[in-house]
Amino acid sequence: MIVVMKPGATAADIGAVIRKAETFGVQTHPIYGENRTVVALVGDLTGLTREVFDQMEGVSHTLRIQEPYKLASRTARPENSVIDVAGGRVRIGGSAVVVMAGPCSVEDRQQIIDIAYAVREAGATVLRGGAFKPRTSPYDFQGLGARGLEYLAEAREATGLPVITEVMREEQVALVAEYADILQIGARNMQNYGLLHAVGKQSKPVMLKRGISGTIRELLMCAEYIVSNGNYNVMLCERGIRTYETATRNTFDLNAVPVLKGQTHLPIVADPSHGTGLRELVPAMSRAALAAGADALILEVHPDPDTAVSDGRQSLTLEEFSALMKSLRRIAQAVDRTIWEPAGLLDAAGKGRTL
Amino acid sequence: MIVVMKPGATAADIGAVIRKAETFGVQTHPIYGENRTVVALVGDLTGLTREVFDQMEGVSHTLRIQEPYKLASRTARPENSVIDVAGGRVRIGGSAVVVMAGPCSVEDRQQIIDIAYAVREAGATVLRGGAFKPRTSPYDFQGLGARGLEYLAEAREATGLPVITEVMREEQVALVAEYADILQIGARNMQNYGLLHAVGKQSKPVMLKRGISGTIRELLMCAEYIVSNGNYNVMLCERGIRTYETATRNTFDLNAVPVLKGQTHLPIVADPSHGTGLRELVPAMSRAALAAGADALILEVHPDPDTAVSDGRQSLTLEEFSALMKSLRRIAQAVDRTIWEPAGLLDAAGKGRTL
Amino acid sequence: MIVVMKPGATAADIGAVIRKAETFGVQTHPIYGENRTVVALVGDLTGLTREVFDQMEGVSHTLRIQEPYKLASRTARPENSVIDVAGGRVRIGGSAVVVMAGPCSVEDRQQIIDIAYAVREAGATVLRGGAFKPRTSPYDFQGLGARGLEYLAEAREATGLPVITEVMREEQVALVAEYADILQIGARNMQNYGLLHAVGKQSKPVMLKRGISGTIRELLMCAEYIVSNGNYNVMLCERGIRTYETATRNTFDLNAVPVLKGQTHLPIVADPSHGTGLRELVPAMSRAALAAGADALILEVHPDPDTAVSDGRQSLTLEEFSALMKSLRRIAQAVDRTIWEPAGLLDAAGKGRTL
Amino acid sequence: MIVVMKPGATAADIGAVIRKAETFGVQTHPIYGENRTVVALVGDLTGLTREVFDQMEGVSHTLRIQEPYKLASRTARPENSVIDVAGGRVRIGGSAVVVMAGPCSVEDRQQIIDIAYAVREAGATVLRGGAFKPRTSPYDFQGLGARGLEYLAEAREATGLPVITEVMREEQVALVAEYADILQIGARNMQNYGLLHAVGKQSKPVMLKRGISGTIRELLMCAEYIVSNGNYNVMLCERGIRTYETATRNTFDLNAVPVLKGQTHLPIVADPSHGTGLRELVPAMSRAALAAGADALILEVHPDPDTAVSDGRQSLTLEEFSALMKSLRRIAQAVDRTIWEPAGLLDAAGKGRTL
Repeated sequence: MIVVMKPGATAADIGAVIRKAETFGVQTHPIYGENRTVVALVGDLTGLTREVFDQMEGVSHTLRIQEPYKLASRTARPENSVIDVAGGRVRIGGSAVVVMAGPCSVEDRQQIIDIAYAVREAGATVLRGGAFKPRTSPYDFQGLGARGLEYLAEAREATGLPVITEVMREEQVALVAEYADILQIGARNMQNYGLLHAVGKQSKPVMLKRGISGTIRELLMCAEYIVSNGNYNVMLCERGIRTYETATRNTFDLNAVPVLKGQTHLPIVADPSHGTGLRELVPAMSRAALAAGADALILEVHPDPDTAVSDGRQSLTLEEFSALMKSLRRIAQAVDRTIWEPAGLLDAAGKGRTL
Repeated sequence: MIVVMKPGATAADIGAVIRKAETFGVQTHPIYGENRTVVALVGDLTGLTREVFDQMEGVSHTLRIQEPYKLASRTARPENSVIDVAGGRVRIGGSAVVVMAGPCSVEDRQQIIDIAYAVREAGATVLRGGAFKPRTSPYDFQGLGARGLEYLAEAREATGLPVITEVMREEQVALVAEYADILQIGARNMQNYGLLHAVGKQSKPVMLKRGISGTIRELLMCAEYIVSNGNYNVMLCERGIRTYETATRNTFDLNAVPVLKGQTHLPIVADPSHGTGLRELVPAMSRAALAAGADALILEVHPDPDTAVSDGRQSLTLEEFSALMKSLRRIAQAVDRTIWEPAGLLDAAGKGRTL
Repeated sequence: MIVVMKPGATAADIGAVIRKAETFGVQTHPIYGENRTVVALVGDLTGLTREVFDQMEGVSHTLRIQEPYKLASRTARPENSVIDVAGGRVRIGGSAVVVMAGPCSVEDRQQIIDIAYAVREAGATVLRGGAFKPRTSPYDFQGLGARGLEYLAEAREATGLPVITEVMREEQVALVAEYADILQIGARNMQNYGLLHAVGKQSKPVMLKRGISGTIRELLMCAEYIVSNGNYNVMLCERGIRTYETATRNTFDLNAVPVLKGQTHLPIVADPSHGTGLRELVPAMSRAALAAGADALILEVHPDPDTAVSDGRQSLTLEEFSALMKSLRRIAQAVDRTIWEPAGLLDAAGKGRTL
Repeated sequence: MIVVMKPGATAADIGAVIRKAETFGVQTHPIYGENRTVVALVGDLTGLTREVFDQMEGVSHTLRIQEPYKLASRTARPENSVIDVAGGRVRIGGSAVVVMAGPCSVEDRQQIIDIAYAVREAGATVLRGGAFKPRTSPYDFQGLGARGLEYLAEAREATGLPVITEVMREEQVALVAEYADILQIGARNMQNYGLLHAVGKQSKPVMLKRGISGTIRELLMCAEYIVSNGNYNVMLCERGIRTYETATRNTFDLNAVPVLKGQTHLPIVADPSHGTGLRELVPAMSRAALAAGADALILEVHPDPDTAVSDGRQSLTLEEFSALMKSLRRIAQAVDRTIWEPAGLLDAAGKGRTL
């Protein structure tokens, strides 16, 4: 850390900063410039926040040199983490890209089973679907709840597809973890520390979505919350940020993919459905996400988006999804990757309708 | 609601929209323009979301005419709501402006009692202090928890000041409501619907903070969540939004004050401490907030900000706070308001050190 | 256009809106709802701005149905425009993707000629380089000016590569058009209407960059300024917008590519160098841009970025650029496109060092 | 400046940074930490940009200690600058707050003269009005041009009010300076360096508006462009920035007022009309701006906003403006300031209708 003194800081001010720093057991290096003095701090700064110095007499501001996330960083683990889902039936973070697909909300039992078969036939290997839904208006549909989880489990039984679904509250973690293969932390809960703590204390893989105004650095610190509680099976998901642009529902920030790949060993998922909010942009942005280096895609698919109870505007039809999968296989090849295909998945599951 | 058809929409497309609307029991008025047709929907649209039409064949987009919040709107209640705090010892939303002050975090028993006396002497009539703290890094101080609530209650006993403190999780609501006079919903939880539901089911007043990327419209819809559960004692708090500008920690969006005053009857609180994140800006922006029409201010004050465990950078010293109160009284007078002074509060409390 | 009346609007208010609209020769359709009345306007609304109604007594607000850009819209011209550069030596907007490359600034004569040869060998077919530079600080390097244009022309002579360079001021248009094959309008000048007018009155192709806070809709309206002055040879360039995220210099908004492809027939260029501001992100985001549907890329390349007088931080080395070109050819193939290769260019130019 | 090395930087990398810095004649202080080394640079860094080091081998990034603006900074001149307008008839930056008012556009001769009389009677001491208008759509009204300047001058003759109007292009500077008392640089031109250079070379006072996505730091650097060309009579104007919030046309960033007052000696103007874009918010935000410390306000006023050719939605009526002036006088008093009243202005002018 660097403590920058104000132009008029006195020797006493500088002395106070040095003594304060020494009480934390770190070494200090004052550097006297023509206009300003800075004090460099060296050693183990773990217990030392910038706020300790920020308001001392004569201090202008402080500059951070190291990042406050450790376990999630590439420095801590240079090679990519690969996460086993459902006992290894699907692996996320390796050279094969995983496509997760399904409806925004689980609407009824037959619907989710039918969609599961359909997305598997097109090439998806994880089934997505919301049982608990966070909705902006109190008058909107709020999800099927526990019943939705059961339907998801039935769809997995039928098709062999592992299931990802959102957990919204700390006290739901045990319940959702019983049914789901991947727990999703939604964008609104990126900084819900109680929830992060709870999913960090259990062992199912977690997909953490970037908050609508979360910085990439904050996303990494939230991942650190989970990992530091013992669960290393964390993947990070870019799903669009809020900017001034209104042509898209959010600004799908694809830059986050290569930035995150440089800073963390955790797998990166892209969600072009929420990222753009517009069905017609999803194919182009899915291809782009794959070309940018995403390890997985999560896509909303609905057989009849017009009648979807939520987010129909951004859901692909089954035909659109099937066509997209074909073009994704070509992009994967162009970046020396493959798509994780359902064939192997079915072998592992040992069940399900023949493709 | 207006459904705008695409230029090439067919008569069949338009017919489908009309029939769909009619299944919801609303009247339809198609208007055939030179380039486009629009269909206006009239009647009770409560059960009708825009998504119903957004993806129909031939539909370009839909336009909303009415707002999805009702109980919180000025239309529903033209006169200002005034909220009784602690049995009327303090009232928020009337012509007297209320100043809430105290430290970011409750640090220890003596600290919070001393600060309570000090801010009361300067003119504050509500004591703020965090017992549960949401912190960005897992390695930061997380608050004293239940013990902090007890210290706050002791400070209230001693000084007569009602207490506001944050509730972060649904299962904490009962506990916090037992100690606090106003429950604060923090910015990160603006859209934590489980929590909103829970505070709506109890009767203590609630201060709902705008999320760091929350729109004013979303803030009103979140207030609607609380109010529609039965608790009308809701005040809304502007505390800074995230923009590209980094000269301030957040962009304190004071425009929200007159916008909200126009759209809702609920009282509006301004938080210049978090809004700007910089102590030296707090006095100017506090005066500005009062001039813009805020019903209350919430301010961070610490006797020794250098040693504060959190947010020292934005806390006023007691001297700065005392000086600010003097200038706020002058601003209040200039806009035909007053400051709610501790004198009356003490009468009501019947206790505490003489001023 | 839809004029939405306030809940309490009187019959006289509605009548005034109708009569006002009729003075513009448009038809009116009032629709009386339970809570509100709206007045739909039908006919030729060209002369009618929303401001005409926005402040009338009893009017709440107005809603636009049609876009204010016409000539640039897909509706006006459903098929893609293809722009001939340098008499057709390069064509932008067709199935072959064009890569423009070169240094941020022209630094000296030999530098630009050497780079031109090098980027051509790697596969670029247009040479970029700034002669006039807009710099944020008055103490920074401002470009070589007219001498830089001459060096660019020499580099074209030597290599056959058409040249793109920025024109910053209206009175420079004639000069720059004399030397350049494509005139670039920089992000800061997106809404410099005098400049847009001037480039619209000449015939050289124009690349219009999106402003750092420009919406996609504004970008299209600025293109309309140029096109409506007679020059249809306009391509639009996404180069990053300003958001709260600081991990990248700008937020390269790749969503703009498919959005624009849907709304306009003009070719779309992507600039990942400025878009991200970070060299290490440029390859991934270049591949992503191509996968998202961009018709051309513009990239900063410098043989020794450490010594570049400007923007070295985002420039690729020649080796990195050459490697990137190889992977771009694979991506192009995966989306059924090709890269416009220098071979044909040289035939057309009839000159230049053998590849 | 601080050069931060990467964790794995070699001694040779560090040596290269030190030798590079020494070629610029600055002293270097390497500090060897446990994980990283940083090199502090001390001395005259004027010629040294961060880019020199940013891409050297082994360098992670650089940190700036001092600001790149000098003449405009508070450090260079601790006391407030006060700008004489029209030979001292009005002075901006002293304890008296100046109110500038008038229509968005000059529409015709009689209109501007009538408005000038009216705003003077209410208490304005500078007349605003646009002769050249930058409009977003090519099909909108573009202003009266030179004829508008003549009408403004006639209004000044009649009323004694100095005149502020926008100059949009470098080649208009001489013409506008001939007529206007204050040259306005609009938000779109904040970084139009040619224009900044031109207004810096003449002597009339300049009001520089913050760009819609300009940071406060960039605004100060643009002011430095003007000041460093010799014209110190520069005032800075906050007029709203672009954020995700759409309840207001822009987000009027009032925080900029105290931030700028801390960083520069130049006077600060607030423009609540453009800042909010909504007439009903202008009175509250004008009072707030004054309470936050603005030295002047610039307000759009129109006798009949319904018929205004531009920006009627944000213009006050004369009655609203007159009422606002009364409340501003009270706010000014509450912050120990006054309003610069037209009485003295008329003495100086020696002409004009009696108030």
